[in-house]
Amino acid sequence: MPMRLIESLATTAPLAETFSDQSILRAMLDFEGALARAEAQLNVIPSGAAELIDRAAKSARIDATDWAAEILAAGTPAVPFVRALREQVLAENPDAAGYVHWGATSQDLCDTALVLLLRKAWDILEADLRRLEQALITLSQRHESTVMLGRTLMQAAPPVTFGLKAAGWLGAISRSHERLEASFREAFILQFGGASGTIASLGNHGIAVAEALAHELRLDLPDAPWHTHRDRLAAVICDCGVLVGSLGKMACDIILLAQSEVGEVAEPAAPGRGGSSTMPHKNNPVGCVATLAAANRVPGLVSNFLAAMVQENERAAGGWHAEWSTIAAVIASAGLGLASMADVGQGLSVNSARMRANIESTAGAIFAEKATILLSKRMGVTAARKLVEQALQQSREQGRHLRDVLIENKEAAAHADALVLRDLESPEDYLGSAGEFRRRLLHAAQQKISKKGE
Amino acid sequence: MPMRLIESLATTAPLAETFSDQSILRAMLDFEGALARAEAQLNVIPSGAAELIDRAAKSARIDATDWAAEILAAGTPAVPFVRALREQVLAENPDAAGYVHWGATSQDLCDTALVLLLRKAWDILEADLRRLEQALITLSQRHESTVMLGRTLMQAAPPVTFGLKAAGWLGAISRSHERLEASFREAFILQFGGASGTIASLGNHGIAVAEALAHELRLDLPDAPWHTHRDRLAAVICDCGVLVGSLGKMACDIILLAQSEVGEVAEPAAPGRGGSSTMPHKNNPVGCVATLAAANRVPGLVSNFLAAMVQENERAAGGWHAEWSTIAAVIASAGLGLASMADVGQGLSVNSARMRANIESTAGAIFAEKATILLSKRMGVTAARKLVEQALQQSREQGRHLRDVLIENKEAAAHADALVLRDLESPEDYLGSAGEFRRRLLHAAQQKISKKGE
Amino acid sequence: MPMRLIESLATTAPLAETFSDQSILRAMLDFEGALARAEAQLNVIPSGAAELIDRAAKSARIDATDWAAEILAAGTPAVPFVRALREQVLAENPDAAGYVHWGATSQDLCDTALVLLLRKAWDILEADLRRLEQALITLSQRHESTVMLGRTLMQAAPPVTFGLKAAGWLGAISRSHERLEASFREAFILQFGGASGTIASLGNHGIAVAEALAHELRLDLPDAPWHTHRDRLAAVICDCGVLVGSLGKMACDIILLAQSEVGEVAEPAAPGRGGSSTMPHKNNPVGCVATLAAANRVPGLVSNFLAAMVQENERAAGGWHAEWSTIAAVIASAGLGLASMADVGQGLSVNSARMRANIESTAGAIFAEKATILLSKRMGVTAARKLVEQALQQSREQGRHLRDVLIENKEAAAHADALVLRDLESPEDYLGSAGEFRRRLLHAAQQKISKKGE
Amino acid sequence: MPMRLIESLATTAPLAETFSDQSILRAMLDFEGALARAEAQLNVIPSGAAELIDRAAKSARIDATDWAAEILAAGTPAVPFVRALREQVLAENPDAAGYVHWGATSQDLCDTALVLLLRKAWDILEADLRRLEQALITLSQRHESTVMLGRTLMQAAPPVTFGLKAAGWLGAISRSHERLEASFREAFILQFGGASGTIASLGNHGIAVAEALAHELRLDLPDAPWHTHRDRLAAVICDCGVLVGSLGKMACDIILLAQSEVGEVAEPAAPGRGGSSTMPHKNNPVGCVATLAAANRVPGLVSNFLAAMVQENERAAGGWHAEWSTIAAVIASAGLGLASMADVGQGLSVNSARMRANIESTAGAIFAEKATILLSKRMGVTAARKLVEQALQQSREQGRHLRDVLIENKEAAAHADALVLRDLESPEDYLGSAGEFRRRLLHAAQQKISKKGE
Repeated sequence: MPMRLIESLATTAPLAETFSDQSILRAMLDFEGALARAEAQLNVIPSGAAELIDRAAKSARIDATDWAAEILAAGTPAVPFVRALREQVLAENPDAAGYVHWGATSQDLCDTALVLLLRKAWDILEADLRRLEQALITLSQRHESTVMLGRTLMQAAPPVTFGLKAAGWLGAISRSHERLEASFREAFILQFGGASGTIASLGNHGIAVAEALAHELRLDLPDAPWHTHRDRLAAVICDCGVLVGSLGKMACDIILLAQSEVGEVAEPAAPGRGGSSTMPHKNNPVGCVATLAAANRVPGLVSNFLAAMVQENERAAGGWHAEWSTIAAVIASAGLGLASMADVGQGLSVNSARMRANIESTAGAIFAEKATILLSKRMGVTAARKLVEQALQQSREQGRHLRDVLIENKEAAAHADALVLRDLESPEDYLGSAGEFRRRLLHAAQQKISKKGE
Repeated sequence: MPMRLIESLATTAPLAETFSDQSILRAMLDFEGALARAEAQLNVIPSGAAELIDRAAKSARIDATDWAAEILAAGTPAVPFVRALREQVLAENPDAAGYVHWGATSQDLCDTALVLLLRKAWDILEADLRRLEQALITLSQRHESTVMLGRTLMQAAPPVTFGLKAAGWLGAISRSHERLEASFREAFILQFGGASGTIASLGNHGIAVAEALAHELRLDLPDAPWHTHRDRLAAVICDCGVLVGSLGKMACDIILLAQSEVGEVAEPAAPGRGGSSTMPHKNNPVGCVATLAAANRVPGLVSNFLAAMVQENERAAGGWHAEWSTIAAVIASAGLGLASMADVGQGLSVNSARMRANIESTAGAIFAEKATILLSKRMGVTAARKLVEQALQQSREQGRHLRDVLIENKEAAAHADALVLRDLESPEDYLGSAGEFRRRLLHAAQQKISKKGE
Repeated sequence: MPMRLIESLATTAPLAETFSDQSILRAMLDFEGALARAEAQLNVIPSGAAELIDRAAKSARIDATDWAAEILAAGTPAVPFVRALREQVLAENPDAAGYVHWGATSQDLCDTALVLLLRKAWDILEADLRRLEQALITLSQRHESTVMLGRTLMQAAPPVTFGLKAAGWLGAISRSHERLEASFREAFILQFGGASGTIASLGNHGIAVAEALAHELRLDLPDAPWHTHRDRLAAVICDCGVLVGSLGKMACDIILLAQSEVGEVAEPAAPGRGGSSTMPHKNNPVGCVATLAAANRVPGLVSNFLAAMVQENERAAGGWHAEWSTIAAVIASAGLGLASMADVGQGLSVNSARMRANIESTAGAIFAEKATILLSKRMGVTAARKLVEQALQQSREQGRHLRDVLIENKEAAAHADALVLRDLESPEDYLGSAGEFRRRLLHAAQQKISKKGE
Repeated sequence: MPMRLIESLATTAPLAETFSDQSILRAMLDFEGALARAEAQLNVIPSGAAELIDRAAKSARIDATDWAAEILAAGTPAVPFVRALREQVLAENPDAAGYVHWGATSQDLCDTALVLLLRKAWDILEADLRRLEQALITLSQRHESTVMLGRTLMQAAPPVTFGLKAAGWLGAISRSHERLEASFREAFILQFGGASGTIASLGNHGIAVAEALAHELRLDLPDAPWHTHRDRLAAVICDCGVLVGSLGKMACDIILLAQSEVGEVAEPAAPGRGGSSTMPHKNNPVGCVATLAAANRVPGLVSNFLAAMVQENERAAGGWHAEWSTIAAVIASAGLGLASMADVGQGLSVNSARMRANIESTAGAIFAEKATILLSKRMGVTAARKLVEQALQQSREQGRHLRDVLIENKEAAAHADALVLRDLESPEDYLGSAGEFRRRLLHAAQQKISKKGE
């Protein structure tokens, strides 16, 4: 697969293929072939010419290697492409060659080809979305009761379950899945407007040809050409941006939990995976790293796309021309993040003993809130807060558990019996609605998934 | 209205009010009042305390003027706010004061307040969306048959109608309207999770309190707290970004058409509007300027929001803290663009004579494509292309109309009769499917609007 | 200090003041007063009028509270401002009022006022730069020999010193200091060009007035007006962006080291600092949080500024209008990050015992590279790598130190004597050039600082 | 030249080559060869091994085609690269192969290779900077006296000269040239720090090897490794961002002046340049289009780079990994903008007759300011303003020149003689300091250029 080194940390093989020259040329040829067939159906061009063009489009071997200068001079890849296709037809029939690209403008060709590539990309993205969602459902179910520290502002907080955490990731991913499905589907539309977006060159046949062409390419027909109205593409790009944000959040959580000092999870190990060129002991969290890199790369690209939406009149001078590489990079990054997180989710090893040990090592500090509430009911809020703060201080200074300090404290003992205090630091007893939240998140995600399966 | 000079070109008065201290404090008070009521309903706190808190929340006069240092030290505005509200309750009943903010975490308060402000903002945005859509429907209908130059890559191109152009703007705006409605509604949800997002402090009552609280505030209850899952907010911000892109496109078109040398449209004139401090003759297109400024300001803000979605574990260290000013600035810019374009759309003056004159001044060059097609049918594509290119060259050099050059050309005359050539430069005869596209765009937009009215 | 809640986590009090209405109006008044004096010096306006204007500018009480609508209608705050100043002069002398703002265009006033504010902001930023640099020098010297884990890709790596880490932060900050000093100084220039940037309204006196005006305001005179050439401002904004990136890196390191599970450093504790509204035990790293929030907020703003550099002809339609709030937000964020990191740097508590304990807890894994090198010299590279990898495996499985495993290993013992292996895990013996790098970084920074002091 | 279609509108051939696999592999091989030589000089590795490695590095044929999966699994291209190079050495001498990459970490290799590519890219950029500057000097001198409309907020304003406009572009470009030269030179530094940035693996020889290695590669030696301190690269990227902003401004001006309705300039015409696939009459401004596309693409990329500066501890998890494709895209876009504007600047055709005609077509409105000043001196400011506004109104309504209206106006005639009024609309008489500003801008730019030539 011809992935270039410069983007080797920025895409996956299937998405590199999707935006390869071969794939782009295939999409462009599909457009021209379908256009000729559609126009012949409506007697806009001779059916003989259409057959020759269609055959050339199916079999053409077009080599774009030397187009660089020509593309920049023309301001569009369509010019050398149409020239090259015409040359292939010309060999057989000069007049037929004149009917290549009949009535279409460069942007019709480039935009429709782009849409065809997006459809190809969506199949890849969606497969990994499903794979990731399934992995998270499994993780969340398996760890329904695995307690671990909550962590807020990078500090220990009252406990949660790993099942809830996985369900939280799932919720965000499945909401993005739903948004992406809608925006991609809205973007699977034909572009066909001719020079000024009126298809004037086809006289009264414009819309009929557009309908036939959309049918040939299995695309929807929009209300009107959208040469300078890029909102549908922008919605796709934005939804990819939101997805990547949620993938980055998941990667961030995992990489934090995988730190040597935390040790609660580890990325799947495999030969050649996560190794270091110098340090034999390393198991680098490469899936998270790739995803966090994607999360660094996408926001500015989204911003570029939005800024370039301000496109002049009937066809833009620079706005459209800025899009291709941006779109390819956003989709590639989203796909890389998805594939990486799907791999990580499927193979994640979870160390529940270490999770419990890390709770234990806080010496009860994270249960101070619980103690306060417990005592508030008996001795009033203000007094309870004061008592617990003093006990916390004592616990820290003496390196003893908060529980033990409280049990020995006469005032506390007067208001809560020892048994209750002894249970203070049981994480299972301070999970609140974690179980129900987990259940609801899973339920909502599974409903979305099964709805799609219908 | 206390709009600050530094943002005087970046917001509107109603949106400045929405994000004013007074409005934020009101939303925070509403949260605390509703929380107390909800907790009292479920006997989580004493009903006497709840009544005092509720009353204080309704009548409180809280002054945030001096909070700057305290907020930075605490890392959240919630700390001085809760302190201030407690102080107000304390005056009446010390123990009740302890039940202010019971079981909630800072981010519950801040996020829910933010959602309440978004609901307020959406009402403002939606009114201007409707106003703009109505203005565009009117413009598009009035100028159904007003022909004007198409313009591609900033150069003259075959004609379109102003009705089609207005309909194109409408299509993009109404699609954004639909996206925004969905994403805003999805974001109108309660935040209530306590320290680690499990509402552990309320034991078994967590979800019941959350339900009651959501009901009190007329918000939806999400599957689970979303302290570090910001995808719903991100979708709102992105959809604002797409809207602003489409508004910028409309403003860009208008400001180009309003150039002194083009003169096809002009922004509404009014005393004090568009004047210059030095040049008495100026009628500056200030609505477009404000909108283009918004379009410059929003993309990077969207990017910031997306980048900040990577939030750590149960509550973020910096990601959440970066959001408030970003969200307010995005909404303000979107609102400014909308209000400006609604004003412009309602009062735009359209100079159809100048539009026709500008077509005429191209001396037929924009009909070269039409001539080529016309002649192609008779003399073959290749020969027709060559003939028209020569005629164009002659037309330019001699400063004569392409039509006249062609009529005199023997080869052309041999293939097309003079009557047909004489009509070559009638813009009405080269509009292709402009009319049908306009009709479809309007129809789709009107269907969306009437659906919302149901 | 009137800092608004919505930006309470996004600025500091002195920078909020710098961009307050009062401060902006003062800068605008300073411009108009100086302009009148300069024009009177060159007999461009009557000296009597100049005196009245100057006096009004010094004493004026201008209230911008109600300008919102007027500013948007005019597209610039200059219009109501000049009107208000004229009204004040008018009371004394109608004809003098006509000479207010004589020959200047709105953007001359707004841009020069902005430059005056930037000068004020730079003094604030620079004081905190010095404070932070001094704090880092002290930390780096104090901890010259404090060993700690290196950490790469969030995993334990061979040791470094905390002194080197602090010196690394210092190096980046002091390089940014130097860049910022250069770009700010380059931006302290007058804007004065009149309607089209030629000062045509002043005939032959344009440049002489510009020189006198620059002198009055203690600004440099640029080669020419720069209404649509914003590169100098862009350089300031970019350099702020780079600074904030380096501040974010420092905050990121500290917040990672301050995690409960790592515990190597802690932000300064103070009453009201880092507390939580729910969790009595929290010492939140609020300085890092504020800085990381700034680092989230600045990149997109830089992007907005750069995108808005594409400004049309003599004065822009939207590009200029997008700048004010962006610049203020960037400077505010940079200042917040600087002040926060200076506070943190000055009060950081460093737990060197915990640093050593964290090294110890890796059970020698981080010294595997060292063992490989040691053995390579005796038994060849390939054999050494294999032996150490096996020993590492054994160390992990048995939970024993790598050192002990190697000492018992016959092959290793054959190639290295026990004494050398016994020292394997001494961090002090595996610091390489850490000391010299630290020294060089400090030296370079101190040279830059003393150069500035000259 | 293997430029891919997806980036065919986003780079130039020489810059595509610079970031091609072949070029990257060459830079990586240069690093490893130089490292082996440097280490042999200091007896860190056997000189026999060094010779074999150096020879392999010079002659190696390395094929990266199939590395995609391996790179993602390792998280760095260094792993398969070092493996491939070792395999080549291994064929000759197994033990020598072990000394490939001795003591270096992956990022040392990748960063230094990147710096070598940046040096190559700078040579390309600088040649086009000089070409563009020279073209602008020529344009500015040739059109010293060519008058044209000023344009502010897209509306006609008092006149300027095209020479001043070209000098304004030159000033901005030459200031960027100076910034870029400084930031690129600051970035031409070695990266060599080993696992944790202390070169511990080389014991006491670390710095000596680093010095020798820097010398071999003709790079500067920084104070210390900069694995997670990316400020120098960030400064390069930002300065490219500022340059592209100024190029975009120039392109924007030209494309506006080249509009069919304005017609004051045209991009150079050449066969295949600016043509359309449908419209035979088009001469599209493709150089401006390419530059504006670059200006759309760069700001978000700068933003991404800045956001990714927040890199953890000794080596980053995602920040570094996000850089390569971003840097390549920024440099490519900057180079495309530069080459395009240099081409445009060298071949721009300027229509001074049309410039004068466009001034004339404003019917004197742009001289209203001049008339006001003229009359103010005689009749007071307030009365003059009122009179001119009325005359302007009359001029518009009657379609007559302002000059003629004023000459007939009795009040005006009473205060200014007819001769003066007759000259009112001479653009040459209302250029203010345009000439001197032009001279100063050229002088400053030429001084910078000659300083570089020294």
